[in-house]
Amino acid sequence: MPDAQPNPDPLSIILNPRSIVVAGASSNPMKMGSIQTVNLMTSGYTGEILLIHPKGGKLFGRTAYTTPDDLPFAPDLAMLVTPSRVTVELLRGLGRLGVKQAVIISAGFKEVGGQGIEMERELVEIAQEYGIRFMGPNCLGIINPWIGLNLTVFPYRDRPGKLGLISQSGTYVAQLMPYLRERGIRYGTAISVGNAADIDLVDCLDYLGRDPHIGAIALYIEGIRRGREFVECARLVAQTKPIVALYVGGSQAGARSSLSHTGSLGGPDRLMDGLLEQAGILRAATLEELFGWSHALASMPVPRGKRMAILTHSGGPATSMADACEKAGLEVPVLSPALQEQIQPLIEPHASAKNPIDLTFTLEHSSFSKEIPRLLFPSEEIDGVLVHGLMDTGIITEIHPAFKNLVNIPIEMVKKAVELDLDTLIDLPHQTGKPMVASNFFREDHGAQTLRDHDIPLFATPEQAVGAMAALVRYGETRKRLASGERDETDGCLTQRPGYQDGATGMKAQLSGTLMDAPSDGNLEPTRERPVARVVFDSAQEAENLDTFTHGAPSGLPDRLPAGVLDEFSAKSLLARFGIPVCRERKVQSLDEAFLAAGEIGYPVVLKGLPQGVAHKSEAGLVQLHIRSDTDLERAWDRIEAAAPGCPRLVAEMLKGERELVVGMTRFPGFGPCVMVGIGGIFTEAIADATFRLAPVPWSEALRMPDSLRLGRLFEAHRGLPAVDRTLLAQTIQAVGRLALEHPEIAEIDINPLIVVEGTPIAADALVVVKPGL
Amino acid sequence: MPDAQPNPDPLSIILNPRSIVVAGASSNPMKMGSIQTVNLMTSGYTGEILLIHPKGGKLFGRTAYTTPDDLPFAPDLAMLVTPSRVTVELLRGLGRLGVKQAVIISAGFKEVGGQGIEMERELVEIAQEYGIRFMGPNCLGIINPWIGLNLTVFPYRDRPGKLGLISQSGTYVAQLMPYLRERGIRYGTAISVGNAADIDLVDCLDYLGRDPHIGAIALYIEGIRRGREFVECARLVAQTKPIVALYVGGSQAGARSSLSHTGSLGGPDRLMDGLLEQAGILRAATLEELFGWSHALASMPVPRGKRMAILTHSGGPATSMADACEKAGLEVPVLSPALQEQIQPLIEPHASAKNPIDLTFTLEHSSFSKEIPRLLFPSEEIDGVLVHGLMDTGIITEIHPAFKNLVNIPIEMVKKAVELDLDTLIDLPHQTGKPMVASNFFREDHGAQTLRDHDIPLFATPEQAVGAMAALVRYGETRKRLASGERDETDGCLTQRPGYQDGATGMKAQLSGTLMDAPSDGNLEPTRERPVARVVFDSAQEAENLDTFTHGAPSGLPDRLPAGVLDEFSAKSLLARFGIPVCRERKVQSLDEAFLAAGEIGYPVVLKGLPQGVAHKSEAGLVQLHIRSDTDLERAWDRIEAAAPGCPRLVAEMLKGERELVVGMTRFPGFGPCVMVGIGGIFTEAIADATFRLAPVPWSEALRMPDSLRLGRLFEAHRGLPAVDRTLLAQTIQAVGRLALEHPEIAEIDINPLIVVEGTPIAADALVVVKPGL
Repeated sequence: MPDAQPNPDPLSIILNPRSIVVAGASSNPMKMGSIQTVNLMTSGYTGEILLIHPKGGKLFGRTAYTTPDDLPFAPDLAMLVTPSRVTVELLRGLGRLGVKQAVIISAGFKEVGGQGIEMERELVEIAQEYGIRFMGPNCLGIINPWIGLNLTVFPYRDRPGKLGLISQSGTYVAQLMPYLRERGIRYGTAISVGNAADIDLVDCLDYLGRDPHIGAIALYIEGIRRGREFVECARLVAQTKPIVALYVGGSQAGARSSLSHTGSLGGPDRLMDGLLEQAGILRAATLEELFGWSHALASMPVPRGKRMAILTHSGGPATSMADACEKAGLEVPVLSPALQEQIQPLIEPHASAKNPIDLTFTLEHSSFSKEIPRLLFPSEEIDGVLVHGLMDTGIITEIHPAFKNLVNIPIEMVKKAVELDLDTLIDLPHQTGKPMVASNFFREDHGAQTLRDHDIPLFATPEQAVGAMAALVRYGETRKRLASGERDETDGCLTQRPGYQDGATGMKAQLSGTLMDAPSDGNLEPTRERPVARVVFDSAQEAENLDTFTHGAPSGLPDRLPAGVLDEFSAKSLLARFGIPVCRERKVQSLDEAFLAAGEIGYPVVLKGLPQGVAHKSEAGLVQLHIRSDTDLERAWDRIEAAAPGCPRLVAEMLKGERELVVGMTRFPGFGPCVMVGIGGIFTEAIADATFRLAPVPWSEALRMPDSLRLGRLFEAHRGLPAVDRTLLAQTIQAVGRLALEHPEIAEIDINPLIVVEGTPIAADALVVVKPGL
Repeated sequence: MPDAQPNPDPLSIILNPRSIVVAGASSNPMKMGSIQTVNLMTSGYTGEILLIHPKGGKLFGRTAYTTPDDLPFAPDLAMLVTPSRVTVELLRGLGRLGVKQAVIISAGFKEVGGQGIEMERELVEIAQEYGIRFMGPNCLGIINPWIGLNLTVFPYRDRPGKLGLISQSGTYVAQLMPYLRERGIRYGTAISVGNAADIDLVDCLDYLGRDPHIGAIALYIEGIRRGREFVECARLVAQTKPIVALYVGGSQAGARSSLSHTGSLGGPDRLMDGLLEQAGILRAATLEELFGWSHALASMPVPRGKRMAILTHSGGPATSMADACEKAGLEVPVLSPALQEQIQPLIEPHASAKNPIDLTFTLEHSSFSKEIPRLLFPSEEIDGVLVHGLMDTGIITEIHPAFKNLVNIPIEMVKKAVELDLDTLIDLPHQTGKPMVASNFFREDHGAQTLRDHDIPLFATPEQAVGAMAALVRYGETRKRLASGERDETDGCLTQRPGYQDGATGMKAQLSGTLMDAPSDGNLEPTRERPVARVVFDSAQEAENLDTFTHGAPSGLPDRLPAGVLDEFSAKSLLARFGIPVCRERKVQSLDEAFLAAGEIGYPVVLKGLPQGVAHKSEAGLVQLHIRSDTDLERAWDRIEAAAPGCPRLVAEMLKGERELVVGMTRFPGFGPCVMVGIGGIFTEAIADATFRLAPVPWSEALRMPDSLRLGRLFEAHRGLPAVDRTLLAQTIQAVGRLALEHPEIAEIDINPLIVVEGTPIAADALVVVKPGL
């Protein structure tokens, strides 16, 4: 019985096996298993290939062993392309022999339901029993052109490249090959993960992150099971290697029905938007972007900034590129007079050297391909170069039908004469550390082919070229952010629940003015000096005693929260205990208590009724705003009494702010608690502008979450209003994450509205939903 | 001296000339003029071609005339590719001869500034003198493959198609040809308009709109001079022929600095968004979309709805297509059990017949290409079919390198054996009136080539196919809208300024409750019954007398408005006279008058100071809100006195609404007055969500303007709030347009905020800027 311990780094063996046993080839060359076997045999792989076939004999000139038991030794890797039941038994036999790695192409497992699910479970059990790690089932194979390894149905016909692909669709590994070849995009490694019953996306991402052959990683994702590990792994990889993902699993229609705004805004698509951002992954919207961007990222140096030179010989593409640059946030600076003076002699007198540099229509391309790039790339004025229309022989091919009867020179001779020497251009990006991205309408062209051959990204349209350049710039920014983020993951965590951190650390009191100090003169106009609830506890005891006036009283909440919806006061007490600024308020049982509370808080106040189980209080007439006097208060009391007799009430300060935000938390299977920031208030769902991050939210992420919103500019200073205090907001975001991590019984949290009072976000209402029976 | 009257339809002659004279060819075959001439001579054009060359003699085997005077007759068309000064003199000579049409390729005119501007003016003067209509200068020619006419530098190597192209970039006519050919996109007519000194974009659009060869029109636009005519012309054409435009002229950075929100939001890009919408033109964001969409629109029937069937043999593309459909607003309905039952026997047992129909990996494509389409196309359940991955010989080409040594059959024989018969599939869209759009990663494939040859749009990726299908669906919707819009252009114009319309028509009084009837009980809570300022005048006199309480008093504004910024009260008076609901308010000079006004209006009120020339009153402390008593009012009075001593004041009702909109007007050169609707309030610029339409705004457009906003859902009913009254809003939009048309001296109008009180939009503040010295 062989050792049941799996290899510690199975993917390095799966992708670099010294020997492979294949089951599934037959004498019918048009069967998938046969195609894959022949493909492997002819792909240039130099390791040993063994075949299994129940009838034995010879297949494609090789011995076929009838069972695993007959094999002369245990190969590094098994590839199975057999019916599902046979696959299970083969895996067992191979396990017995000591095979430790497998790629299971065979379909008919979990994806077909019923018996298939059971058989997939058997595969996993067998693998565990024998220490096997495997890809699939229901995958389409792997390609490692560096060793001529190709387990897919199509030959890989190109030299090895630097692109790493991990795909949940086999088609996007194999059938895509002609598409990629046309574009000069080359695999370093390509992996179809299939059902990922064992080795999954995260394992592959981790492996390719470490593979020195791989310059950038492209992911095609339909669903993620280990969400938390995925984000953590990607965040590490992306510090040194760009990752681009196309995620198509999530329709908004699939968003869960939910009590909270946070839940209803959190469809998988929006969730993934935030999590990919947090993971440092660029999100592509189309296949074209996925492969165009990752190709550019794998091939070109990462730019230091976003100032682009545009070089072309035609006004339309120059305008298209400049326009696309602006829309993508890239700059096209006017070149300095000094640089323009150097360029001008190289172009027509009326052509522009400003940037875009437009040579205007010309058949003479040497300044285009040599002299001008030599000036542009080393210039301190630009960070990258976009080129449209560089070509040579394509024009001859194009005009040949008209000229063949008039000009008596063989076309091949003319072509040879116009061929450009592009050696300089091809070297410049790497020499200067500045990327070049090109576009061209001519595919069949010596110049275009030369660029493709030398890994200069070449696109069919100007906009695609700019899109890839923008991806390079964004990766540059991401890399910087991740590097700095790693240093201060917890910098912002000033407010922590007592006991959450090691007691020995101690906690510093830092009361920058507590809620109790707030003015109670009835003046509704907030001032810049308004004290904020920035409560930092010095000791657990102090925290408990701190704010008996409002929240956090010792008579507060139990450690284990009761199932159901917490009443608003309890919810805010809980938030306050985690350091989240909440409005001053008091729970009252009688009108007299209400008068007292209003006197302490100071008019204007809000009176709210808190009957059990009402989620939307405003619609139920349970929120009375703008109460300015005892008379007003009494009237409000009576109105609530009419709406919900005898219910407890809350007297709260009337917060005044022009901006209402929402911060919330919801849990997603595989991801755990995710914290949301968005535009709040009564139009939360209508505006539907929110972004999510996994908890715990790193400080750098918490600070920049508003930048992921379409309406992110609302967080800036505007027309006399100060900017939203990002530090306080980030603390609230982190606190909600910690609260969720510490209280796994909480299903959802909504702080809505989080009213921005002169820049300070303060919780005016809160909803906390606790799961039953956890 | 020939007749100075130009031909009434010059483009029909320019694109179908019986004879052409060319100036600009020389003995150097690599000069642009020579290339174009040779191209014309070899393009299959059967009309007569005459050449002019100052040295006379022979060129390319033909006689060259030295001057226009030597020509034997006046040809239908002249093409000039000569230095700018020569061009001017040639045009004069040709005019004398009686030539009436010209295509002026020659550059060196307006685009180079200085002398060039002057020479372009000379061209126009000569043309007027001799009745010449011309394209260019600085254009790259025209192509009409239906008669083998090609004046560009590149041969057109394909058969004629149905796509009409009008481009402000010559590159996108000529150099793009290889790009289009690869995609099976064929010109019906292509026009490079160049500087458009005479014949411009609008003329060409009008002509191609009438050309029966043309199925759809693609526009590449960098700027529009005759904006108004452009919109009107397009709106007519788009009723029967789809138009797609790529507009790249407008950077937001170029938005004019302006006093008004409307001006500052109206960069050319956002303006064009609205105007293209109004014109019934689909706006493409990239070249890829421009040509992909217009190709599909030129080739395929327009779908009746948006229910799509997806047919493929692989899960990844099926998911990509379904996801892209959802994002583009297309539906992918689950097929009925009856239809599924018919499909299931044609596919593998575990493959899905639900929709997407996924055959799973297979080399057998006849059900894919024949049986299943025969069931899908006629089905009442779907409006169009998306197909990915239909191919035949491409797979053989792809796997050949692996198999060539193992399978002893010549590859061409294998290819022949797998070739699909696609006749059925190609006919089905036209037979059933339902579009088909396809994608495929294999370009070199018999099946793919067959689709391209038969004008089935075939794209490189699933997302591009869905994008083109979505364009077809949107055009179907546009066509319906334009057809209905034509019927009710003025339906909504209930409120008109007295005297604006023919007096004989009479105007119906229709006071659905005037502002004067509003309750004054100090209750801030609006009710559904709140009377609205829906004032319809019965006679001019009545209108003048109607509302002496607030606006529209006879002591009101003069017919010609004074230059400068109108004070808020005057601005609102003007709006009220055009029937726009404004808040009840009164201009007061003393505190006593203020008390009186507040008594009449009813607390709570707002007090505003109106000093001359202050645009942003809030920041200047000139707006005092929430005044609930005489005491409050006195205090507010004093505060304003402190901020702007002695300034006039306004006492206004305190409108309460959760939504603040902005409606405005600004003028753009070439377009005239444009009306804007957007999200208003103090965050107008930060949110920057606005859409523009040309005035007069057709009723159907006014009604649907909010749908063009990102935050259009804010106009819907939400959480107990009623929907914004679209009818009242549309009346306000139309009224602002009429106001602008009647008062050309008004430069800008802002109604901000237009507060939505229980669904009714009411002007709470207004800014009217009058141009000096008009």
